[in-house]
Amino acid sequence: MNNFTFYSPTFFAFGKDSEDKAGELVKRFGGTKVLIHYGGGSVVRSGLLDRVKRSLENAGIGYTELGGVKPNPRSGLVYEGIDLVKREGVDFILAVGGGSTIDSSKAIAAGALYDGDFWDFYSGKQIEKALPVGTVLTIAAAGSEGSGDSVITKEEGMLKRGTGSDALRPKFSILNPALTQTLPPYQTAAGITDIMAHLYERYLTNTKDVEVTDRLIEALLLTLKHEAPRVIANPNDYEARANIMWAGMVGHNNSCGVGRSQDWLSHMIEHELSALYDCAHGAGLAVTMPAVFTYELEHDVMRFAQVAVRVWGCQMDFAHPEVTAKEGIEAFRKFLISIGMPKNFEELGAKEEDIPKLVDVLFEGSDGKLNGFIEINKEDAAKIYKMMV
Amino acid sequence: MNNFTFYSPTFFAFGKDSEDKAGELVKRFGGTKVLIHYGGGSVVRSGLLDRVKRSLENAGIGYTELGGVKPNPRSGLVYEGIDLVKREGVDFILAVGGGSTIDSSKAIAAGALYDGDFWDFYSGKQIEKALPVGTVLTIAAAGSEGSGDSVITKEEGMLKRGTGSDALRPKFSILNPALTQTLPPYQTAAGITDIMAHLYERYLTNTKDVEVTDRLIEALLLTLKHEAPRVIANPNDYEARANIMWAGMVGHNNSCGVGRSQDWLSHMIEHELSALYDCAHGAGLAVTMPAVFTYELEHDVMRFAQVAVRVWGCQMDFAHPEVTAKEGIEAFRKFLISIGMPKNFEELGAKEEDIPKLVDVLFEGSDGKLNGFIEINKEDAAKIYKMMV
Repeated sequence: MNNFTFYSPTFFAFGKDSEDKAGELVKRFGGTKVLIHYGGGSVVRSGLLDRVKRSLENAGIGYTELGGVKPNPRSGLVYEGIDLVKREGVDFILAVGGGSTIDSSKAIAAGALYDGDFWDFYSGKQIEKALPVGTVLTIAAAGSEGSGDSVITKEEGMLKRGTGSDALRPKFSILNPALTQTLPPYQTAAGITDIMAHLYERYLTNTKDVEVTDRLIEALLLTLKHEAPRVIANPNDYEARANIMWAGMVGHNNSCGVGRSQDWLSHMIEHELSALYDCAHGAGLAVTMPAVFTYELEHDVMRFAQVAVRVWGCQMDFAHPEVTAKEGIEAFRKFLISIGMPKNFEELGAKEEDIPKLVDVLFEGSDGKLNGFIEINKEDAAKIYKMMV
Repeated sequence: MNNFTFYSPTFFAFGKDSEDKAGELVKRFGGTKVLIHYGGGSVVRSGLLDRVKRSLENAGIGYTELGGVKPNPRSGLVYEGIDLVKREGVDFILAVGGGSTIDSSKAIAAGALYDGDFWDFYSGKQIEKALPVGTVLTIAAAGSEGSGDSVITKEEGMLKRGTGSDALRPKFSILNPALTQTLPPYQTAAGITDIMAHLYERYLTNTKDVEVTDRLIEALLLTLKHEAPRVIANPNDYEARANIMWAGMVGHNNSCGVGRSQDWLSHMIEHELSALYDCAHGAGLAVTMPAVFTYELEHDVMRFAQVAVRVWGCQMDFAHPEVTAKEGIEAFRKFLISIGMPKNFEELGAKEEDIPKLVDVLFEGSDGKLNGFIEINKEDAAKIYKMMV
């Protein structure tokens, strides 16, 4: 196991009606003037936004608001948020929504305390400080509610890039599984796929002797394998939603990823798809992961065999471990299709002729190599995209 | 799943040489004058105490010290620590040792900011504030490095009682698996048993539909099942020590115990054994758990069958689930014996004729009933102690 540090100082309020604690929690963590940041649509229609506002009012907390966050959140709205925060003297950002809204809120929080262009942070500059952020989560997917990560798309060139810092970890996150019951099945499934990607990309490690984190990741994958079909069959299943929601947080706060090298090639390769086609990130991952894993397979057959046996229930073929390894990838692929995810470029709305463009953007700003479980160059990336067609 | 809150704001520095960060971390969390609290013996002999002092000196942090913590830490030393802290103007407690030292440090930290008798907190009064505590852990066992819990024994009557509060969660914990390599096999095994008890006592729940936490607990039990024989065979196995150490923290910071009722009868029943005979807590648990679980078995046969199949690799007897359930308890008992733990009162140094006394102390201050996975009265407790003979 590698040396590591781990710090997850987020307060979680989990369960029914927990959004009513928003005001009290903002106060506990020192906020006096809040920017409520959200997408639109369902958060407004469901009355959630009004309930959150009421909770702030009851706690005597002032607020201003900025809606309009889109999936694959854009830099334009971040600039607008930073201006608003500075103009209004906001000292706390409250994200009400999913990963996109939380990521956009984190970008505003960092940019508000920085004189330069916030995009510097998404181009490699380390974030040292940020305004405090709280979240009211409405979809189990990104894990952003418990992580210091944020991904933003720059409209100029549709560059999708991420950053990470302990300064971005939310002060509190409110997780009410009931709020996710109104999500359409497709978005629910895309969220589950994203969670599973966070787990697989930590699982694919070159660090030896990491039994405890291997086992924790497998535990969460087993949970999703069991709960996903339940929630797809019955979107109102609170218990299944609750299990998925906590798995999504634990799976991405990195308690199961510490002390080991990680992969993240699937995320990088997918980001260009959702940036170009504006598809759901999880849907893009469903198409990307089986291709990437198949490409990586011969790098460590036994690791893929291990997840095949322990998670997917495959029988180990001790004479031909690669058979078991492939069976595991195929089982995962079929699972993703079974919950309604796309299986190829066509179903995703992607085009084979765009592959050279996807590859070019993927490697923009790099030295021609990307590192994860394996190292890939442009030629490898083109082959992987081609496998998804 | 039940509603819950979860807050684990401890900074963990994990890995080789991480104790060199003690000074820098005390500074980061606001300490200026430290009480170094420790047991004695190995911490001094190994040079660890000197290294920690040097780290504090390098960071310009002043300190005073108090050694002498014993296993099953006593109230007497806590009073002494509180006096010392008040007299010397200490503003940060640094525990260098295992669970006993950390628990004693937490008691001092709470008592130092309280005008009354610190024992009030171990008699039901809620802890609202405490001095900040940091830890340098030397044994993977109690999980106190990542929890808000503390257990102290009052010398008058040898009452062993616990308390819990978020105010007691360490600001930072330094986990260097190499520091545990010098532990004798018996103490290593007792520590592993304690960790497994923390997991089992969370596993034994009456809350339904808790797949995610079930799976996480099983993951940690599987880790210990795999790593314990390695470390008993080779005490210098850093990797096995590292996996056990992280499992010990994750297993008790409650991320795998949230939203579900828990048991803790084994801990309560054992506490009287280690209080009376001063045996290792883990050794007492090794004798206690199989008896308690057998007594609890018919309350929920399927739960015991589940852990038997998922953790102990038993084949499910679908016609007779109770057979599988019993097989799982027996597999656990044999596992504990295989790593060197005692199997009965005699090996533990306990006496059958003391059972009435053990029962009396166990129920002191209660209304004649103790609640966990099941509710027990004095008669039940006597039967359970009798099963251990």
